Amino acid sequence: MQTPQKIAVVGSGLVGTLLAIYLKRAGHTVHVFDRSPDIRNVEFSGRSINLVMSNRGWKTLEDVGLDEAIRSIGIPVYKRAIHLQDGKLNYQSYGKEGEAIFSLSRGVLNRKMVDLAEAEGVEFFFERKIWDVTLATASLWEGESEQGEWKELKYDKVFGADGAFSRIRHRMQRQSMFNYSQEFMKIGYKELHIPANADGSPKIDIHSLHIWPRGNFMLMGLANLDNTFTCTLFMPIEGENSFESLINEEKLVSFFAEYFPDTKAVIPDLVRDYFNNPTSSLVVMKCFPWTFEDKVALIGDSAHAIVPFYGHGMNAGFEDITILNELMKEYGDDWNKIFKAYEISRKPNADAIAELSRRNFIEMSAKTADEQFLLQKKIEKWFSEKHPDKWMPIYSRVTFSLQPYVEALSVGDFQNNIMQEVLTLDNIEEIWNSPIVENKILELINKH
Amino acid sequence: MQTPQKIAVVGSGLVGTLLAIYLKRAGHTVHVFDRSPDIRNVEFSGRSINLVMSNRGWKTLEDVGLDEAIRSIGIPVYKRAIHLQDGKLNYQSYGKEGEAIFSLSRGVLNRKMVDLAEAEGVEFFFERKIWDVTLATASLWEGESEQGEWKELKYDKVFGADGAFSRIRHRMQRQSMFNYSQEFMKIGYKELHIPANADGSPKIDIHSLHIWPRGNFMLMGLANLDNTFTCTLFMPIEGENSFESLINEEKLVSFFAEYFPDTKAVIPDLVRDYFNNPTSSLVVMKCFPWTFEDKVALIGDSAHAIVPFYGHGMNAGFEDITILNELMKEYGDDWNKIFKAYEISRKPNADAIAELSRRNFIEMSAKTADEQFLLQKKIEKWFSEKHPDKWMPIYSRVTFSLQPYVEALSVGDFQNNIMQEVLTLDNIEEIWNSPIVENKILELINKH
Repeated sequence: MQTPQKIAVVGSGLVGTLLAIYLKRAGHTVHVFDRSPDIRNVEFSGRSINLVMSNRGWKTLEDVGLDEAIRSIGIPVYKRAIHLQDGKLNYQSYGKEGEAIFSLSRGVLNRKMVDLAEAEGVEFFFERKIWDVTLATASLWEGESEQGEWKELKYDKVFGADGAFSRIRHRMQRQSMFNYSQEFMKIGYKELHIPANADGSPKIDIHSLHIWPRGNFMLMGLANLDNTFTCTLFMPIEGENSFESLINEEKLVSFFAEYFPDTKAVIPDLVRDYFNNPTSSLVVMKCFPWTFEDKVALIGDSAHAIVPFYGHGMNAGFEDITILNELMKEYGDDWNKIFKAYEISRKPNADAIAELSRRNFIEMSAKTADEQFLLQKKIEKWFSEKHPDKWMPIYSRVTFSLQPYVEALSVGDFQNNIMQEVLTLDNIEEIWNSPIVENKILELINKH
Repeated sequence: MQTPQKIAVVGSGLVGTLLAIYLKRAGHTVHVFDRSPDIRNVEFSGRSINLVMSNRGWKTLEDVGLDEAIRSIGIPVYKRAIHLQDGKLNYQSYGKEGEAIFSLSRGVLNRKMVDLAEAEGVEFFFERKIWDVTLATASLWEGESEQGEWKELKYDKVFGADGAFSRIRHRMQRQSMFNYSQEFMKIGYKELHIPANADGSPKIDIHSLHIWPRGNFMLMGLANLDNTFTCTLFMPIEGENSFESLINEEKLVSFFAEYFPDTKAVIPDLVRDYFNNPTSSLVVMKCFPWTFEDKVALIGDSAHAIVPFYGHGMNAGFEDITILNELMKEYGDDWNKIFKAYEISRKPNADAIAELSRRNFIEMSAKTADEQFLLQKKIEKWFSEKHPDKWMPIYSRVTFSLQPYVEALSVGDFQNNIMQEVLTLDNIEEIWNSPIVENKILELINKH
C-alpha cells in the first residue's frame, strides 16, 4: 500500500479520468483539472472519430471492475465491411469467430467515465486553465489567461493527461535533453453522419466497421447506440481529391457521386455536414523522457499521440495505466523507480503502435481493395486456425492480445516476409488452402 | 529594387547580424533585438566551440564585400592533425594544395560582425527580451519577464535568427501543420584551453585542426589569433568514459593520462577548466515550414540546428542569406513568393547538412584513427587529382564548393559505395595508386 499523496491529473479525457480512478483506489487524493466545461453539460463537437475498445482497453477497465458499465454503451464490431467503388461489398473478419472490437462514441464514453470517477470520490475542476507546471515541486499554475495573473496549486505529483498539445509536456520540452517531435500528416479528416431510419433501425450493418477504400483517401463509418453512424472522411489536405479541392456544393456532390455512390442513400445531410464540420488535422507526436523525477509524468496522448488508423489511441493510453498500476504495486512509495520503469517499459511500445497505426492507413485506404492483400489475409486466417500455436495474425496480436506492441510489430514483420514468399507460389489463388502452402509456411517458420 | 520595409531581426548572432547588413543594403530599416547584453562589452562564456568558415560562408561575405575584414581575424587550417593514443601524429589534408578552412573565435567574429552592421546603419537593441510574436501582423512582444507586462512592437516583417531555442519558432510551432523535432545527442561537450608559450609562440601547429580520436569520444583543438587553442572534449554524457564518470580530479587526471597523454604538456589548467566550464549538450532541431505568409521567416539555427562535426552551422546559416538575397532580387516586392521559394529551396539542404554533420562525428572520433579509412581518403585524393572532372571528394564538395548540400550528400553516398568495392581488391594497400585501381574506379563510375 502506498502512502497517500495529493495528486493532480491535468485533463479529464478518457485516460485522465480512468487514471484518476486508479489513483483514488490506491488511496490518494485526486484532483482532475480541465480547461473545458464539464463534458456532461455540453454538445459534442462534430469533430470526433468513433473509438474502438479492444483487449488492452478492456483489461484496464476489468482490473477496476468497470468493464461491464462500459460494455453496455458499446457495440460489438466483428468485421470490416469493404465498400468497393462498383458497389460490391466484401467482408473481412477481424479475428476468430466471436472476437470483436467495440464501437464507442467518444462523448458518451467520456461522460460515463467522469460519472464513474466522481462516484469513486475523484474531484473534478472544470473550466480551470492550467498554463504551466513547476516540475521540481509539482506545482500547477492556474489563471484566466496565459498573460494574466497565475495562482500556484501545490501537489505531491502531477500527471499530464492533457493530450497531444499538452501544457505539462510543453514545460518538460524546454528542459535540456528532452527529445520531441510533432509531425502533421498530409491527410486531414472530417466527420459526417448516417442517421437511423425513420423506424429507428440502422441503414447499414451496425456490427461492421464500414470502409470505402479509394487509394489515398477513404470514408469509414462506426455505429452509435442509437443506430446512427459516425463517419469520417480521410483525405489529403491539398492536391487532387483533397479538402482544398472540394470547395463548393457542386464539386462535393459530384465527387461523392463518383467515388462513394452507395452513400447517397445513407448520408442525407452530406452538404451541410461537410461545410459545417471542421476539417481536422492528424499529428504524430513522440517524446522522451515522459517523467520528471518522482514529481511529474505524462500519460496517454500527451506522451504519445498517434494517428487513429489502428483504433489504438485510447487502448494504448489505458495500457499505460495498467503498467503504471503494476509498478505502483511493485515499488510502493518509491515513485522515482515507478516513473523510471514506467517510461522505459512504455516508450518502445508507444513507438511501435505509432508505426503500426501509420502503416494501417495504407492498409485501410488502399490494401482492403486489393485482391492480393485479401488473399494474404485469408491464407493467414486459415493457417492460424490450423496452427494456432504457430501463427497469430498481426491484427489479432495488436487487438485481441496483450502482447507488447513492440513484439507484435516485429513478429508481424517476420510473418509478412513469409507471406510475401508464399504469395509468389505458382497458382496461389487456387492452391491457397492446400498442403503445399501449409508445408511451405511451416518450412519458412522453421527456417528463420 | 524593393519597397523599403521596417524589419526586425530577433537575435544578434552571426546569422542575425549578417542578414541585417543584407537587408540594410537592400534599402530597409533594420532593427536587431537581443536579450543578451552587447557582446562587445562582455566576457566570452567558456562554452563555445571555435568556428570554421569555408566557401559557403565566404561567398555570403564576399557578396557584400566583407570577406577581407573577416579573413584578417581568421587562421587558415589546411589539414587534420590526428593524435593517436600511442603518441603517433598523422596528417590528412582537407583539400587540394592551398585549400583551407578558417578557424575563428566565435566571440571575436561576433563582435566584429556587430561593428560592421552598425557601420552600415543597422540599429541594435540589446537586453531587450522578445517573448512572443503575432505572426499575422509581424508584431513582437517585448517585456521584462515572461509573465509580466508586454509592449507591442510593430514591423512589416520579422526574421527569427534567435537560434536553436528560438522564441519566434516557438510561436510558429503552435500552429497546426507545423512539423518539428528536437533530438538531443547522448554526447555532450566541454571547452578546454591550450595557452601559448611564454614567448607568445603556439604550443602546437596553428594551421591544423587537431583531433584526438578515441572511438566514442574525442578531443579537438582549433587555434585562436593569439596562438592559444580552444579545445573541445566531446564525450558521452553517461556510461563508461563519460562526463558523468569523471567526477573528481583523480579520475580526470588519470583518464587524460591514459587517453590523451600528449596533452599533459599543453593543457596546464585541465582540472580548473574541466570543473569550471559547463558541460553543454548538442541538439539536432528540424522544422517546417520556416515562414509565415509574407510576415515572418526563420533563418540559421532557428530553422535548422545541427551538430558541429562538419563545421557547417554558420556556413549553412550564411548560405540561407545568400539564397534569400537572390530571391529578393528575383521577386522584388513579392515577399510571399520570396519566403515560399526560400523555404522550399533551403529545407532539403538543411536536412542534408544535418545528416552529414551527424555522420561526421563517427568520422572524426573513430574513423580518423582507422587505417582502412585513411587509405580510402588517400585513394580518393589521388584519383581526384588525376580525374578532377570525375571525382571531387565529399569533404571538398561540402566545404570547398557551393554545390547544394543535398547533392553533395547523394553523390557522396554514390562515391562511398564505389570505394567500398575498391577497398576489397586484393592487396589494395600495395596497389592503391596503380592503373588497376584507376581503371576499376572508372569502370564503377561508368557502370552506375
